[in-house]
Amino acid sequence: MKTNLDRIKKDIEILSEFNATPEKGLTRFSFTKEDRQVREYLKEELKKLNVEIYEDESATLLAKRKGTGGQLPSIMIGSHFDSVKNGGNFDGPAGIIMALEILRTLDENNIKMKYPVEFVAMIEEEGGRFGAGVFGSRAMAGMVTYEELLRNKDENGISMAEAMEEFGFDPKKISDAKRNPEDIKAFIELHIEQGPLLESKNKNVGIVDYVVGINHINVTVKGRPDHAGTTPMNMRADSMNIAAKVIGKIDSYAVEENNGTVVTVGSVKTKPGATNIVAGNVEFTIDLRSKDYESIQKIKEKIKSDLETLTKDNEGLSYEIVQMLDVKPVEMSKKILGLFEKNADSNDLSYEIMTSGAGHDAMIMGKIADVGLVFVPSKDGRSHCPEEWTDYEDLQKGIELIYHTVLDLGEVQ
Amino acid sequence: MKTNLDRIKKDIEILSEFNATPEKGLTRFSFTKEDRQVREYLKEELKKLNVEIYEDESATLLAKRKGTGGQLPSIMIGSHFDSVKNGGNFDGPAGIIMALEILRTLDENNIKMKYPVEFVAMIEEEGGRFGAGVFGSRAMAGMVTYEELLRNKDENGISMAEAMEEFGFDPKKISDAKRNPEDIKAFIELHIEQGPLLESKNKNVGIVDYVVGINHINVTVKGRPDHAGTTPMNMRADSMNIAAKVIGKIDSYAVEENNGTVVTVGSVKTKPGATNIVAGNVEFTIDLRSKDYESIQKIKEKIKSDLETLTKDNEGLSYEIVQMLDVKPVEMSKKILGLFEKNADSNDLSYEIMTSGAGHDAMIMGKIADVGLVFVPSKDGRSHCPEEWTDYEDLQKGIELIYHTVLDLGEVQ
Repeated sequence: MKTNLDRIKKDIEILSEFNATPEKGLTRFSFTKEDRQVREYLKEELKKLNVEIYEDESATLLAKRKGTGGQLPSIMIGSHFDSVKNGGNFDGPAGIIMALEILRTLDENNIKMKYPVEFVAMIEEEGGRFGAGVFGSRAMAGMVTYEELLRNKDENGISMAEAMEEFGFDPKKISDAKRNPEDIKAFIELHIEQGPLLESKNKNVGIVDYVVGINHINVTVKGRPDHAGTTPMNMRADSMNIAAKVIGKIDSYAVEENNGTVVTVGSVKTKPGATNIVAGNVEFTIDLRSKDYESIQKIKEKIKSDLETLTKDNEGLSYEIVQMLDVKPVEMSKKILGLFEKNADSNDLSYEIMTSGAGHDAMIMGKIADVGLVFVPSKDGRSHCPEEWTDYEDLQKGIELIYHTVLDLGEVQ
Repeated sequence: MKTNLDRIKKDIEILSEFNATPEKGLTRFSFTKEDRQVREYLKEELKKLNVEIYEDESATLLAKRKGTGGQLPSIMIGSHFDSVKNGGNFDGPAGIIMALEILRTLDENNIKMKYPVEFVAMIEEEGGRFGAGVFGSRAMAGMVTYEELLRNKDENGISMAEAMEEFGFDPKKISDAKRNPEDIKAFIELHIEQGPLLESKNKNVGIVDYVVGINHINVTVKGRPDHAGTTPMNMRADSMNIAAKVIGKIDSYAVEENNGTVVTVGSVKTKPGATNIVAGNVEFTIDLRSKDYESIQKIKEKIKSDLETLTKDNEGLSYEIVQMLDVKPVEMSKKILGLFEKNADSNDLSYEIMTSGAGHDAMIMGKIADVGLVFVPSKDGRSHCPEEWTDYEDLQKGIELIYHTVLDLGEVQ
């Protein structure tokens, strides 16, 4: 291996200390003391390298290593360093450390490449503080407006604009964070898998072909809150009964697609929600993900048809479907995927071509660049919790794969 | 009709004013100013009659009209005058006014009967303030201990014992409220139906044959809170999916019994309850009611069997069933039921022999006396809400039915 396991381990351990909830997993929200601490550590490390350090108007920290070829587009590498509330030490930072360690290794080995390499450390990917995620990449893709910064507020009512300004950035200049697609040769991210697949298949790395499309749908089944004892079964408009019949079939719809499509009903709320009152309204969420947008459409239609069939003969029953999120699948660059495969083989890394079931900055960056995404195994598939863990050796293998791919893309001179 | 519609109407209207939440339905909790106001009004009305007014150790207000036969057991008539929070004007008071109006009518017509009649006005039937309902009747049946009065507390942490003492009663004497079954010839209650049956069948009164047995069961399906995007369908332990499959079948189990059995899942709680996290735990309630205790047992077994079948092949899944309440069905007195039928016929009242799906004081009084329970129609089946309504004419018909039955039982001289 060219990269250094001790440095990787030390980086993870140090970043883990910049944490607002030390006893309860890692909480590192954007524009906080912990955010500042990470920046300062990264800047100190980057200062030791042959790079130009800067921050863009969305507060993303970047560091550019010049190429020998003059004004050529950059190979961007990195991820995010914010976290969810009470999350873990790897979701985000693993990819930041990948970028840092690759820059170190390039310098250490006196590698000259035609193309520049840019270290990228983004924030608010999780939306943990202000609710709207993949912020840094959306800003680079020109998708964030000043109005959004005014609108998105944290628990204490502080807007993102206020927080940015307090932190030393000018929210009115947010649109200047937009990158010209012609200036980006590639964006490569490393992230923990956040699922059990690599571990269960005993693979070193995951090479992502698609980031799934995601639909979030809120369904409300509306019935009538009757007395649980005095209302005969045939005179009820029992919304929970209908909701259960619908939810109980959804898993089979995903399995039938036979392409890795997943569906989840994670939240069900009954109103009024008393033991002895027939549920008047039931609200439930549907999270539907697939690399095939057609699969998402088909399952939505089946759910709608079930709701229709189950409510149409009872005038006390109705339903409402609200589409909360509709993101199309994003295909990763076939060229970069091919390089990942080649370098995995030549470095004896076992790999799995897989779909990313979670959204990542790479998904957004796909709008303006060729993107590649590498997963490293998550112990027990856990993430967004204190137990989140990736063995340092596994993390290094993912970094190594990207290192070799950067050498290919960068055209070593 | 012998009874007086204007007086019935006036009574309902006056009692409705003793209300802690005038703009939001009727709230009349036990041992409050509103409780006191009702007592004072009732005492004033009772003072006009040929009765002996007293209160027992559970704060039930009673008024005894002597019989000509000397020391004979009483025909007790009445209900409760406490309410749920933000309830209606009829649940409880309808039966109190029945008793008051019958006493008035007996006096007015100079009726001499062999047996005494006792007006009964109980509190805390709803358990609205202290959580444990059918309080007055449980006290008469000797089922309330001083320890319960210390244990049951209201929202502000005030125990029932403290509230009673403050109100002028001695909680340590609660066991003296116990009535000797030999002193009670019958207990007859009138109550609003709280369901849609009488209205939909266009019947004047309901004659109750059974108060249903009630089971309250809390089920927890335990799974694993996985990431909704990164966990393949076949690697999940999705508790909501299992819960939905179980809940979706329960209604058919009730219908199959074909004896009026009803089952309700009124509350479902998902944890952690996020759109993008597979539900780790799902807790749901089951409210199961039948006049046939066997039906309750059969349905419980089917539910348990479903839970077992659906969880046994996935080691990430398990379930827990907690029995919260198990009350057996109570049969009303066949003799009183026969008198109700006879008197309905002779007074041209249409009636429905029906099961009471809700618990009532009559259910508890059944432990120490022959009991009869008459329902009057509830508009739209609504109860425990501001819209709760029974037409005064309908209420009078129920009162009239009981009046004639009291004449029969009391043996007019």
